[in-house]
Amino acid sequence: MLSEGRLLFGGDYNPEQWPAAVWDDDVRLMRAAGVNLVTVGVFAWAALQPEPGRFTFEWLDTVLDLLHDNGIGVALATPTASPPPWLGHRHPDTLPQGPDGVRRLYGSRNQYCPCAPAYRRAALVVTEALAARYARHPALRMWHIGNEYGTACHCDHCARRFRGWLVRRYGDLDGLNTAWGTAVWSQRYGSWDEVLPPRHMQYIGNPGQELDYQRFVSDALLECFTAERDAVRSANPAVPVTTNFMDLYRHTDGWRWAAEEDFVSLDTYPDPNDPDAALRGALSKDVVRSLGGGRPWLLMEQSPGAASWRPVATPKRPGLNRLWSMQAVARGADGVLHFQWRASRQGAERAHGAMVPHAGPDSRVFREICELGSSLDALSAVVGSTVAAGVAIVLDWDAWRACELPHQPLDGFSYVDRLTEYYAPLWRDNVTCDFARADGPLGDYRLVLVPNLYQVTPAAAANLRDYVAGGGTLVMGPFSGVADPDERVFTGGWPWGLADLFGVRVEEHWPLAAPLAVASGDLGDFVATGFAEWAEARGASVVATARGGPLDGRPMVLRNGRAWYVATLPSPDGMRRLLRTVCAAAGVRPVLPDLPPGVEAVRRGDRVFLLNHDDLTVDIVAAPH
Amino acid sequence: MLSEGRLLFGGDYNPEQWPAAVWDDDVRLMRAAGVNLVTVGVFAWAALQPEPGRFTFEWLDTVLDLLHDNGIGVALATPTASPPPWLGHRHPDTLPQGPDGVRRLYGSRNQYCPCAPAYRRAALVVTEALAARYARHPALRMWHIGNEYGTACHCDHCARRFRGWLVRRYGDLDGLNTAWGTAVWSQRYGSWDEVLPPRHMQYIGNPGQELDYQRFVSDALLECFTAERDAVRSANPAVPVTTNFMDLYRHTDGWRWAAEEDFVSLDTYPDPNDPDAALRGALSKDVVRSLGGGRPWLLMEQSPGAASWRPVATPKRPGLNRLWSMQAVARGADGVLHFQWRASRQGAERAHGAMVPHAGPDSRVFREICELGSSLDALSAVVGSTVAAGVAIVLDWDAWRACELPHQPLDGFSYVDRLTEYYAPLWRDNVTCDFARADGPLGDYRLVLVPNLYQVTPAAAANLRDYVAGGGTLVMGPFSGVADPDERVFTGGWPWGLADLFGVRVEEHWPLAAPLAVASGDLGDFVATGFAEWAEARGASVVATARGGPLDGRPMVLRNGRAWYVATLPSPDGMRRLLRTVCAAAGVRPVLPDLPPGVEAVRRGDRVFLLNHDDLTVDIVAAPH
Amino acid sequence: MLSEGRLLFGGDYNPEQWPAAVWDDDVRLMRAAGVNLVTVGVFAWAALQPEPGRFTFEWLDTVLDLLHDNGIGVALATPTASPPPWLGHRHPDTLPQGPDGVRRLYGSRNQYCPCAPAYRRAALVVTEALAARYARHPALRMWHIGNEYGTACHCDHCARRFRGWLVRRYGDLDGLNTAWGTAVWSQRYGSWDEVLPPRHMQYIGNPGQELDYQRFVSDALLECFTAERDAVRSANPAVPVTTNFMDLYRHTDGWRWAAEEDFVSLDTYPDPNDPDAALRGALSKDVVRSLGGGRPWLLMEQSPGAASWRPVATPKRPGLNRLWSMQAVARGADGVLHFQWRASRQGAERAHGAMVPHAGPDSRVFREICELGSSLDALSAVVGSTVAAGVAIVLDWDAWRACELPHQPLDGFSYVDRLTEYYAPLWRDNVTCDFARADGPLGDYRLVLVPNLYQVTPAAAANLRDYVAGGGTLVMGPFSGVADPDERVFTGGWPWGLADLFGVRVEEHWPLAAPLAVASGDLGDFVATGFAEWAEARGASVVATARGGPLDGRPMVLRNGRAWYVATLPSPDGMRRLLRTVCAAAGVRPVLPDLPPGVEAVRRGDRVFLLNHDDLTVDIVAAPH
Repeated sequence: MLSEGRLLFGGDYNPEQWPAAVWDDDVRLMRAAGVNLVTVGVFAWAALQPEPGRFTFEWLDTVLDLLHDNGIGVALATPTASPPPWLGHRHPDTLPQGPDGVRRLYGSRNQYCPCAPAYRRAALVVTEALAARYARHPALRMWHIGNEYGTACHCDHCARRFRGWLVRRYGDLDGLNTAWGTAVWSQRYGSWDEVLPPRHMQYIGNPGQELDYQRFVSDALLECFTAERDAVRSANPAVPVTTNFMDLYRHTDGWRWAAEEDFVSLDTYPDPNDPDAALRGALSKDVVRSLGGGRPWLLMEQSPGAASWRPVATPKRPGLNRLWSMQAVARGADGVLHFQWRASRQGAERAHGAMVPHAGPDSRVFREICELGSSLDALSAVVGSTVAAGVAIVLDWDAWRACELPHQPLDGFSYVDRLTEYYAPLWRDNVTCDFARADGPLGDYRLVLVPNLYQVTPAAAANLRDYVAGGGTLVMGPFSGVADPDERVFTGGWPWGLADLFGVRVEEHWPLAAPLAVASGDLGDFVATGFAEWAEARGASVVATARGGPLDGRPMVLRNGRAWYVATLPSPDGMRRLLRTVCAAAGVRPVLPDLPPGVEAVRRGDRVFLLNHDDLTVDIVAAPH
Repeated sequence: MLSEGRLLFGGDYNPEQWPAAVWDDDVRLMRAAGVNLVTVGVFAWAALQPEPGRFTFEWLDTVLDLLHDNGIGVALATPTASPPPWLGHRHPDTLPQGPDGVRRLYGSRNQYCPCAPAYRRAALVVTEALAARYARHPALRMWHIGNEYGTACHCDHCARRFRGWLVRRYGDLDGLNTAWGTAVWSQRYGSWDEVLPPRHMQYIGNPGQELDYQRFVSDALLECFTAERDAVRSANPAVPVTTNFMDLYRHTDGWRWAAEEDFVSLDTYPDPNDPDAALRGALSKDVVRSLGGGRPWLLMEQSPGAASWRPVATPKRPGLNRLWSMQAVARGADGVLHFQWRASRQGAERAHGAMVPHAGPDSRVFREICELGSSLDALSAVVGSTVAAGVAIVLDWDAWRACELPHQPLDGFSYVDRLTEYYAPLWRDNVTCDFARADGPLGDYRLVLVPNLYQVTPAAAANLRDYVAGGGTLVMGPFSGVADPDERVFTGGWPWGLADLFGVRVEEHWPLAAPLAVASGDLGDFVATGFAEWAEARGASVVATARGGPLDGRPMVLRNGRAWYVATLPSPDGMRRLLRTVCAAAGVRPVLPDLPPGVEAVRRGDRVFLLNHDDLTVDIVAAPH
Repeated sequence: MLSEGRLLFGGDYNPEQWPAAVWDDDVRLMRAAGVNLVTVGVFAWAALQPEPGRFTFEWLDTVLDLLHDNGIGVALATPTASPPPWLGHRHPDTLPQGPDGVRRLYGSRNQYCPCAPAYRRAALVVTEALAARYARHPALRMWHIGNEYGTACHCDHCARRFRGWLVRRYGDLDGLNTAWGTAVWSQRYGSWDEVLPPRHMQYIGNPGQELDYQRFVSDALLECFTAERDAVRSANPAVPVTTNFMDLYRHTDGWRWAAEEDFVSLDTYPDPNDPDAALRGALSKDVVRSLGGGRPWLLMEQSPGAASWRPVATPKRPGLNRLWSMQAVARGADGVLHFQWRASRQGAERAHGAMVPHAGPDSRVFREICELGSSLDALSAVVGSTVAAGVAIVLDWDAWRACELPHQPLDGFSYVDRLTEYYAPLWRDNVTCDFARADGPLGDYRLVLVPNLYQVTPAAAANLRDYVAGGGTLVMGPFSGVADPDERVFTGGWPWGLADLFGVRVEEHWPLAAPLAVASGDLGDFVATGFAEWAEARGASVVATARGGPLDGRPMVLRNGRAWYVATLPSPDGMRRLLRTVCAAAGVRPVLPDLPPGVEAVRRGDRVFLLNHDDLTVDIVAAPH
């Protein structure tokens, strides 16, 4: 279990940046704020192992004992996200190599090649030493492996492992040549030695190579994760293991990664200047809850103030950190942590917000942290409870990666934008959504939305057909069912495997240089932008039709019983009217109807959270049941 | 002769991407569409020679026989634009090196150094084998050498050949130092070993070095072309040889290249979203016809749908491919081919349009292809006929390259924009233009336009003076007569060699940060943008004068008898009024007068083509003669 | 003394670019124009030493004699800013290496590593030879060392010297690790071998490393300068030595550099298209005068026409070069030189303006040069006199470098913009300003402005406190007192060391995504943009307050007696009202009151210069005293 009866509250704690004299003050302030969990050791490799073969755990012993003595639990991190300079200096082949062939130097973080044997060995050595010493420390609540996995490298170590990965996937060179379509442009590989990561090229690269390299990098990093996970687990199987995901991040496949964790964690940094920040935050949180199978999850990082890597790093306004923390709890989190506890005085993130900011505890930020601790303490009853959703949105990493490959019909076609366009109107109407795999169980949902499924497998197509056959309502967006997992375009009309279900045949993809007028008696007229399709109804009834231009008269929304196909990207109001119509037809209802704009409602367990994202005070009288 | 009594019709055919079972279907559909020529083998090197010393021609035998049996001719390509991975792997020095020193990897196309001996040898080996086997195949209609030549490399092989090229041009090191002006910035070369291609530099490079490297790269690629041409010619001198030019492309000197071909070919990809696409297409086609000496040429590539390398790859609307195909025929093409026959399912161009699109023959695209085939078949009478033009526009690769060098007075001064500004009003008025060399024969034209002649030779200046002396009317734009072919700026006032002709002296170049008002009693007032000059009339009469700002009162259009000088870049309407005035004075007339806007008229042989680029239907009653 | 009774007038003279036949014409035209000083030899290394061990001084003998015979003095340059190709070819380690590891090739200029022993040796050899030959030449007026120092390199030579620099600064590795905060992100250095320049990294680099490398590069270049200075001085101690600074340039610390020169020189290139060009020119000139301790300085380079490296290289309009030249004299220059004498026909700067332009002496540019020579000749009385200022603006290179480091709260926070915002309203009101060090003498000024002091030392803080205690009036802008010189953020509230002085405590930095309304009874309401702070008055009275948004009610301008704190970036009109209020309180007065807009007034010695930057003619009747 992630938490024991209390919502977790705290942040990243980096005592190695401070003299020991500050530690007592830290713990005193943590207690004052109600902190009950801190993440320790994320970037402490050099502090724990200043040179090969020499460990300096004493300071960490002191810190863990001190925390434990004060009732504060610890998420202990393996420090492997940032190897010390000594590793890169002694083993330059552990430094990652760009597609330009240039090694990236230490002095930052993430400077490791996930395939370099010397890195993997060194990472295991420090992980095993850490596990041996602390796996049964009474402060230890969980392991936090690495940090925000995402490093790519293009070196010869990677080339070697990539070949192994390809052999496992395709069997032999013929399989590879077929999968990558190397008959195009004379790219046929005659020996495995010739196969390399995608490096600098004269012109456009092979999309199969690019796509597989993305998959491979995710898997190579996952091997790093699982190796460390196994090491800490074998020292004490009772301690749960996680790593921290970033907000919707293409480069690591969330479904595959989440399956290897005991629970999932999220780092989330919506921009306080973004008017859609609350929407994007809700989306990230619903995604991570869904990746974790609906079980409670942990908000591992958010900033109490500014995110220093942002070009305009505006802090959160008063109250905003509490509001977004409550959004996390409402959407299934059993804990709310921050990066970081005490603001660093030095280093690349010195301008990042913290629970104890540079100004010190006499500050509006720390006062708000204390209030948040106390608010969370009052919410212990929600621990372990879950969030119910009647709608699922399909989230698919292969579709995501492939639809964003270079030289698709529309450069900058954004999978996350597609998700957001479907998620947004439901969020504004307080309809709660899960995210789901295209080939996973869908039967419990009244409505399934597929904003995009560019690559589709036979299993996924069958699953969606079965879902509708079983009484479900399905909506699919454009540029779907186009290619197979080898990025081989289907012929004969799209969406492959689903055209009959929707009663539609798509002939051509039609990116839009200018907005497209769409007329609909049922939905009202709307405008679409960015992308459309040359489609025809083959059984479906036409709900909305393009007006003017070369697409004049082409169907843009089609309905075939419970299966709806949307051949373009409607404007937000068009999408809202469309999804309201669909929800009404599918019997999907909001958590609470008729709330003022800007008020978010989520039911978790037997409670309804009401979150007011607007500046105005509103009165709400409601009987949730 | 390019064609034998029929307009050629077809496209690139890549059977190596498809199982043999598809080939019969291909040929059946080709016949249905009226296809009579396909380009085969463009990127088939790996398919023809999977490893050094081993050839696999059998599949190509089958394909050529099948095509021949069905009455379809073949443009057989040497496959040397994309060497197989085995070449780059065994000879890494054949991979091109960027100015950053990084080799570009295989897995794309064009990954060859045109100077690497191993590449040249391998290219000849495969070319000779191909020629030996197919030079007398009955299907063979023409050779298509390489593809869209344009690769640059900066390696040591290139350095060596560049030095040879410089020795031939300048004789010795003193000649080189003089030509490049190495006395500036202490760049004097003391030995040939020191001379290198322009690579990464600390600050601005030497313009002579940069310019000569552009010339050298064009010539080095041309050597690759001629070597292959000679190889196929020696196998059967009766088969004509071409290579496909790209739309106005600075990096290969069209005049030098066209002189080495039996006929010229064009790949043209106007953007369907560009309101000026028809104008740009006409310009490209007139240029390529002119490069080929006015003889019939071949439209080698256009897309029946989208061009996948475009950020917004919108397909052609219904009818547009036919319209632009007819524009090619009207402007002198004896054939209309497409890239490509059947849409690739894989590879970097999988989203590119095709005659048989992914949707298959049951599609609006294929139906339109069939209609086009039939329309072209009805036009056999135009084969071999030519296009008459009363106006020539001077097109000069040295002016082009040099006026776009870094650190000219106006960054982004675009030679093609200059051509287009002069071409556009004539095109809109249906006045047909040729393009001509500055030092070539001009006497047959009533009017010669020189939008820009930044670099000028004594021969060109004399030629233009002679042209006017012989009764011709001449118009020259600004930033002309500035430098000699060594990029040495002339002193004493511009345009060098022509100032007397125009009765003008230019003292200063004056790029414009804001629009410039120009007053003219004769032309009406207009606005100019981007560039102007501080000039004075020395014999010319002033037709238009700047108003306001530091240039107030300076002459902007000047006339000296039949010689007009334009010292700025007039707005489109200003340019139209100017050129109408000039045309009237020179006795230049449109193909047909008073056509509705958007209707293009071109006379080819004894026919007038009328092309309606507008959406509206128009009625035209005209007696062309 | 810089000048002997006459204002210096002339420009860079590069006879090595021209045949000797032109030299006589040069000298004749120089005399016609009134030229009395030319800079010779700046990029003449290859012309003086075409290969190692061989010198060709004869041409320079002739040129110097010719100039002397015609009464023209010489600023003789060491040619070390552009080593000849032979140096880079024989010693590739002298070529600078980018952070990407790629060496920058010769064929440009500045292609040297300031730490490469072979470069330093070669630079001294040519310098000593030059000094030996010409140190007592009668034409010699001054030495001009190098040119526009600013080259950076990241090679292993630099690494070695950087380590030495760090040892001197921090003593040992512990000192370095502490200073750079390497406890953050596990960056601890275990041996000096591991310490390198900042090269390509996977993610954000260490700000301490980046900042120290900027300091180191400035110092390494300064070593190059002082080595050459010492060489020429030892040949003849009587000849003054300078080098040419660029307009406000972060990469060389002006205070440290000016201290090593006999007098300071400026290269200044305001953009004629910039409506604030005159303001920016005045600022640069006041800065360079201040760097030189208020003594007369030399305008070493300006363009008589266009600056060719500008994307839109518009020439100066008629009269503008004279106007800006007079601005230099008014603000303390004892000479006005230009780049360059005669326009180059070749090379990267062939489109740059010149005193003798490409058009030749029969040109408006050369006629204006002659008029300028004559105007300057009439102003001999000002030679040696100084400019009095009642206001000082603090200029601090460490604050500058550090506030612009990556990942500060606001990307693109520009130190020069901050200086300009405070300088502009005073310049428009004709209040003359000096620039001063934060820890230097301030007692003579009625008013000191500190637009930004991001990094602050105890000495600087004490100096500013003492200044106010001594009766001075002080204004400080936001993002000040944030960090110490090791880029270690101060805790407990900002501005460190000065909070009591201003009676203010800043808790948070608050970059602004949208404009901020500020209300003030005393100053009138205004708008602020870009940056603000969450501050509170702790003793100060609040002069202006934010209205609306998260900062609603926070103080934005505070006053504590004579100490004013501005917690945001007011709009130009807000800043003007603020500084007028402050000037009135401090008793600061303009040179002349109530001048028409666009008229600049400066007092130098006993003269007042009136410069009309507007297009309109104005009448001014004034009694200056």
